[in-house]
Amino acid sequence: MISEFYKEMTGKTSVIRDFFAYSMERAKVVGAENICNFSLGNPSVPCPDSFTKEMIRLLSEKDPMAIHGYSPSLGLDSTRTKIAESLNRRFGMDYTAKHIFPTTGAAGAIAHAVRCIAGDGDEIITFAPYFPEYIPYITGCGAKLRIVPADIDSFQINFEEFEKMMNEKVAAVIINSPNNPSGIVYTTETIDKLASILNEKQKEYGHEIFLISDEPYREIIFAGADAPFISKHYDNSICCYSFSKSLSIPGERLGYVAVNPKAKDAEMIVPMCGQVSRFTGHNCPPSIIQLAAESVLDETSDLSIYETNKNLLYKALTEIGYECVEPMGTFYMFPKSLIPDANEFCWRAAKELDLILVPGDSFACPGHFRIAYCVQTETVEKAIPRFKKLYDMYK
Amino acid sequence: MISEFYKEMTGKTSVIRDFFAYSMERAKVVGAENICNFSLGNPSVPCPDSFTKEMIRLLSEKDPMAIHGYSPSLGLDSTRTKIAESLNRRFGMDYTAKHIFPTTGAAGAIAHAVRCIAGDGDEIITFAPYFPEYIPYITGCGAKLRIVPADIDSFQINFEEFEKMMNEKVAAVIINSPNNPSGIVYTTETIDKLASILNEKQKEYGHEIFLISDEPYREIIFAGADAPFISKHYDNSICCYSFSKSLSIPGERLGYVAVNPKAKDAEMIVPMCGQVSRFTGHNCPPSIIQLAAESVLDETSDLSIYETNKNLLYKALTEIGYECVEPMGTFYMFPKSLIPDANEFCWRAAKELDLILVPGDSFACPGHFRIAYCVQTETVEKAIPRFKKLYDMYK
Repeated sequence: MISEFYKEMTGKTSVIRDFFAYSMERAKVVGAENICNFSLGNPSVPCPDSFTKEMIRLLSEKDPMAIHGYSPSLGLDSTRTKIAESLNRRFGMDYTAKHIFPTTGAAGAIAHAVRCIAGDGDEIITFAPYFPEYIPYITGCGAKLRIVPADIDSFQINFEEFEKMMNEKVAAVIINSPNNPSGIVYTTETIDKLASILNEKQKEYGHEIFLISDEPYREIIFAGADAPFISKHYDNSICCYSFSKSLSIPGERLGYVAVNPKAKDAEMIVPMCGQVSRFTGHNCPPSIIQLAAESVLDETSDLSIYETNKNLLYKALTEIGYECVEPMGTFYMFPKSLIPDANEFCWRAAKELDLILVPGDSFACPGHFRIAYCVQTETVEKAIPRFKKLYDMYK
Repeated sequence: MISEFYKEMTGKTSVIRDFFAYSMERAKVVGAENICNFSLGNPSVPCPDSFTKEMIRLLSEKDPMAIHGYSPSLGLDSTRTKIAESLNRRFGMDYTAKHIFPTTGAAGAIAHAVRCIAGDGDEIITFAPYFPEYIPYITGCGAKLRIVPADIDSFQINFEEFEKMMNEKVAAVIINSPNNPSGIVYTTETIDKLASILNEKQKEYGHEIFLISDEPYREIIFAGADAPFISKHYDNSICCYSFSKSLSIPGERLGYVAVNPKAKDAEMIVPMCGQVSRFTGHNCPPSIIQLAAESVLDETSDLSIYETNKNLLYKALTEIGYECVEPMGTFYMFPKSLIPDANEFCWRAAKELDLILVPGDSFACPGHFRIAYCVQTETVEKAIPRFKKLYDMYK
């Protein structure tokens, strides 16, 4: 009587995981220092000292029953209030605690948000290249995910295809900017055009279309980027955030849903998130992590290494001859594969050069490969001659 | 387009929450010290010092990227191994890391377990009095919860009614011993009889029937209790545990699923739990909490106050004239209401005596009320004359 659905899923492996597993096996043979591993999006810098100090202060000075006690199902009031204040201060918004729902990372935030605004028979649209875990979040609420093909010249939105795919069933659109895997940032022009289409379609269809903005990389922005705060540009918007990358605490599972105060039913959505949690047995994120994070909301880890790595790698790759849209944020880059089959290309790089990349196919963008340069700068330096060799194998 | 289903749920209030909210409002008027608040099941003792020390040691000595990094989706290997070893040492089982899936408390554990073994059209049976949050966990997987009426003389299992309700659609049975709200512990005789019926029905129906054992109160056991380790008595069993009560860290959201190594597909269920997580966006429990807990697995908070309070309260209540089955564990007691309408009874106690109890109706056991005596012993002492007054109002 065990579930055939979940049982069958365990048999399917993820391509990214396959490359990572290969790199681990290979490291046992040649030593980890000889692998240039760009497969995983794990932060490569520590959390801010202030976060560690605040954790130790809470543990040393506070009543253990207070710091480890149940959080209310909608999150700690103090944390919700401080998140709202930080967003208002930084982005000129009008959030209150009522609009903030702490979650277990952006994953938890999106899984909650979609259940609040979509159900059986609804469609949710996103844009390639996109994060493939959207699929379970969305099928989990009964809706269907549809993917707008990428504009591979800019990785901004392919509006022509988007407008063709819009229809009355669309309950929400999910965007991820700064983007995993392309590293691009949607410009103010892109966001305003998207907002204008959504506003028009809302009128035409006579119902809300929510914009779910998946923003775990919001704080990793490079010089010259035009990086608007998305919820400022569209009323029916829900920001899904994670502290995993900004504070380098991915294992502690903290993020939030921030519902635009101007959204329809704005103050209803957070209590609905609380109801969603009851079905998944998730409840709230860990109390001590909520408490520690609320004191460092305007801080980040030292994120400068990501821009250093991007500059080094982008310059080297384009000089070698790779075609690549320049990243404006995140710690990813998404060049064109030198052959149409990016999977074959990445396996050759792995097997012949110990250079671990991942193909773009699982991001719905074949013919490209992702470089996760959240690594030490020495690893980037060591990889550059290998990228040259790889290029020479094909050209 | 927001979900009418979740929206409607936000309007329904929980009776327990209503009583708790009343107590908070009333505390503002008469002072919290004058309220005898027995409404909530929050631990009233701190976590062990060893847990706090281990948290501080990890934060002070370890690489922040290691302690705050992503946990694998099935949990940290070291934590899973140590949980298995601790269970084997304490209960003579044969778990390995492959059978252990760390979760966000028992809530997360049950929500995962039911999705692995039940789906649309299946039935899951539990026994009154029971924890009402089972309903969302179970409807969340598409199955239907059916409640066997209580045996109010002992709060052991009402086997006659249970056998009447058994049918081919039953995929699982959930038990909670030590029990919230009755405080009773299922005896070896009860568990063996349940196992024997389930084994017989498995043969008759030709499919497995899983026993999901919800065990957050496992370590809170009183002198003289016959408290078997349930999974030792039935092969197709899944233990759902939480550290919330044993370590007094309910806000940190740590528990686990432990699949009986003798269960059908035993090594398949944990990877399936990992797939379930992808749909709910939950991922794993916080890394640092997994790491800190793995060093104190055989320890608990000083739980003796619960037995002290039980002894004091049980003696006083039965001397006054209340009818009550003596609790053998937890920090709950579940006496008979002095009038059939326990809701009316509890509101009168609240409004006339500032004595906050909760009615048994939401545990599917009307005519009873729950006393959560996870409070300071002085509160119990202060409450006894009020219980006497309450009794005198009716008798």
